[in-house]
Amino acid sequence: MQTKKYTLTEDRIPASWYNIAADLPKPLAPPLHPGTGQPIGPADLAPLFPMALIAQEVSQERIINIPEEVIQAYRQWRPTPLFRAHHLEKVLDTPARIYYKYEGTSPAGSHKPNTAYPQAYYNKVEGTQRLTTETGAGQWGSALSIACAYYGLECKVFMVKISYQQKPYRHGLMEAFGARVTPSPSMETNAGRAILAERPDSPGSLGIAISEAVEMAAIDPNTKYALGSVLNHVLLHQTVIGLEAIEQMALAEDYPEVIVGCTGGGSNFAGITFPFIGRKLRGEQDVRVVAVEPAACPSLTKGPFAYDFGDTGHLTPLVKMHTLGSTFVPAGFHAGGLRYHGMAPMVSHLLDLNIIEAIAVPQLETFSAGVLFARAEGILPAPEANHAVAGAIREALRCKEEGVSRAILFNLCGHGHFDIQAYMDYNAGKLQDYEYPAEEISMALAGLPSFQG
Amino acid sequence: MQTKKYTLTEDRIPASWYNIAADLPKPLAPPLHPGTGQPIGPADLAPLFPMALIAQEVSQERIINIPEEVIQAYRQWRPTPLFRAHHLEKVLDTPARIYYKYEGTSPAGSHKPNTAYPQAYYNKVEGTQRLTTETGAGQWGSALSIACAYYGLECKVFMVKISYQQKPYRHGLMEAFGARVTPSPSMETNAGRAILAERPDSPGSLGIAISEAVEMAAIDPNTKYALGSVLNHVLLHQTVIGLEAIEQMALAEDYPEVIVGCTGGGSNFAGITFPFIGRKLRGEQDVRVVAVEPAACPSLTKGPFAYDFGDTGHLTPLVKMHTLGSTFVPAGFHAGGLRYHGMAPMVSHLLDLNIIEAIAVPQLETFSAGVLFARAEGILPAPEANHAVAGAIREALRCKEEGVSRAILFNLCGHGHFDIQAYMDYNAGKLQDYEYPAEEISMALAGLPSFQG
Repeated sequence: MQTKKYTLTEDRIPASWYNIAADLPKPLAPPLHPGTGQPIGPADLAPLFPMALIAQEVSQERIINIPEEVIQAYRQWRPTPLFRAHHLEKVLDTPARIYYKYEGTSPAGSHKPNTAYPQAYYNKVEGTQRLTTETGAGQWGSALSIACAYYGLECKVFMVKISYQQKPYRHGLMEAFGARVTPSPSMETNAGRAILAERPDSPGSLGIAISEAVEMAAIDPNTKYALGSVLNHVLLHQTVIGLEAIEQMALAEDYPEVIVGCTGGGSNFAGITFPFIGRKLRGEQDVRVVAVEPAACPSLTKGPFAYDFGDTGHLTPLVKMHTLGSTFVPAGFHAGGLRYHGMAPMVSHLLDLNIIEAIAVPQLETFSAGVLFARAEGILPAPEANHAVAGAIREALRCKEEGVSRAILFNLCGHGHFDIQAYMDYNAGKLQDYEYPAEEISMALAGLPSFQG
Repeated sequence: MQTKKYTLTEDRIPASWYNIAADLPKPLAPPLHPGTGQPIGPADLAPLFPMALIAQEVSQERIINIPEEVIQAYRQWRPTPLFRAHHLEKVLDTPARIYYKYEGTSPAGSHKPNTAYPQAYYNKVEGTQRLTTETGAGQWGSALSIACAYYGLECKVFMVKISYQQKPYRHGLMEAFGARVTPSPSMETNAGRAILAERPDSPGSLGIAISEAVEMAAIDPNTKYALGSVLNHVLLHQTVIGLEAIEQMALAEDYPEVIVGCTGGGSNFAGITFPFIGRKLRGEQDVRVVAVEPAACPSLTKGPFAYDFGDTGHLTPLVKMHTLGSTFVPAGFHAGGLRYHGMAPMVSHLLDLNIIEAIAVPQLETFSAGVLFARAEGILPAPEANHAVAGAIREALRCKEEGVSRAILFNLCGHGHFDIQAYMDYNAGKLQDYEYPAEEISMALAGLPSFQG
């Protein structure tokens, strides 16, 4: 009984991305200008993004072609493998058929290059000289640094200060590729200076780092901004994962009855699930879809579906999403990529329409799942991916209880080679679960914009 | 102009390993018993290795079948990709055609699982309960830990103490897979205690760690020993790399005129080059082969070809190899996988027969090459692999000087995600080249066994 791999040849890299907007039963609520309360137009976004990406952000076309230059870049690591987890099934003694797509073979070790390369490419084509971005745990900053080096763009990364201090190797990686990395909040922007004036020892947050990166792009015409998740065009780029997985499940002569994805900003979740959800929405084949989020940052399961800012400094448009409030700073759990106060509007919208489900899982359960998976399957997952593993194991154990064999698919979005400290802490019994941060969330939600569309 | 990948489908994983012993113009000098001076037989090795591996160690058969269970394990990450480095060629402005095989997509991030899985498999089949091994930088210990978890064997790793302290994440990874990792020299073995009695603050060395691992296996019938390089059967397992590369070069409609490999113990070098050297020895197609070693541990270019011990504690048989003396402790340069006093007897033998060449490259040149490669090709190499990159760049620049286009192939044996500190030190100007350690080598060589076969 061995792990079985389903591989696609290089000519099966998708030629186009899948845009779920085309199949929605109800359109997404528009982003609003915080001053006027009016839907924003392309011109409002032009200082931040190249026109090609703005067009993708609002497109209603189901199929969006991938430029040949991006497919060339994808060829370095795509198509990624899909595995049947026979070993894990055996350890769990479950009748479930567990499959996982593995995105950790990319040179950045995660799914993030799927959008880093096209974002850098479109910027290059439209003459951008420099990209700014934010990064938490560093997966996104690493991927964008590599893509910028590839296309000859400068890269400036605002890295959440506590992560910058705790994960020096992450910014070391970005710097090896030539990026300039600044701990955030910094003195380089108004947004950073305002935070530091109020709280000089601020550990930073993704929301703050986004404000700094956006501000720097907004004031310099040669500089644009890149985001690693949340936005429609970012989710769109990640759909190569699910599009490949559909073909690979066909090779396995199977189809998932349940798909499990971890959710931080929503891009990895969208990548694996949207193409399958599209088939469900078009009446082609049904599927249950479960989003798994950390119990200590439970935007989907505990946050209201409301208009909110994407950043702490309130420089972004208002978007309708599940949010814990733009000033919420989550506890220091190890899945840094899931520590965002909001959730992609598109993922939030699908939950609101009851097309997907969501659960929150505590930290210790995710690490227990990750170690079990690693020893069975030989791959150490990133802490973010452990949430998907934990969700898949819950489903597999339910199959066992019910005596039913179901096909379960999840995305192993990255390897854990940068997160060994977390595993060492877990093995030493130093990791903890966090109480539901009711008071902090309630305070942050009190600051929601009063205007709600 | 983009990076081009040559991929093989899963059914092209080699069905057998290539044994260069069958094609040698002159046989390898036999390993000798240090007491009797007589060639050792299988019985002498039986306490340490399962019979299947001993048979491979001395086999003269050209083709050795890979067990189906090992091919199943290989399927997780093999065949690995081969790339044409168009970007790097452009940056170097060279007429050379540069190709690299990339082994960093394995779950351990290096080529080491190619032998870790078969070694664990044969031990499992023959009833071994526990494997001991040594590790320097940690690539080998990681790979063996993962393979032992896969086959349900216990794993005990003696890790060079200075690496244990400087690279905690490496043993954290092994421990996540359930291995027990001990800094070496330790108080757990006679060999370790003897070293510590003489020098309590010993930073350890590969030679010492080998002594400890061998001793522990020798005294316990349920425990056997696994080595990550040097031995014939280890080099044999790595030939899947070169066998795949031959097919992939054919896909590229090209053939290497020069192959460059980095050498520490010799396993990665053997993996990429031996199948090509076999074709050369059989008169099928010529090729120049260049071994690249660190200037601070120059066994091939500065060490005599002589019988020596594989370990510092003198528990191993005597093998004829290029050696700097079994008590030589190299300087603390960052390519930990290349810090071994000796060199695989088979690689040494090929150099002695003038079938291959060898050069030594200083540390700063290797990191400069690695950073250039990373920014051009989007993959951060391990410091060991930087030696191969540096050698390939030297060859490419020679092509430019001579105005000749040659095909150059090298093996990028692992990614540098575990070695970011080295890159940070390099970027900060903190890395140094090391003087040729003439005195230390001369002292260590004075301790060569007087009996020389």
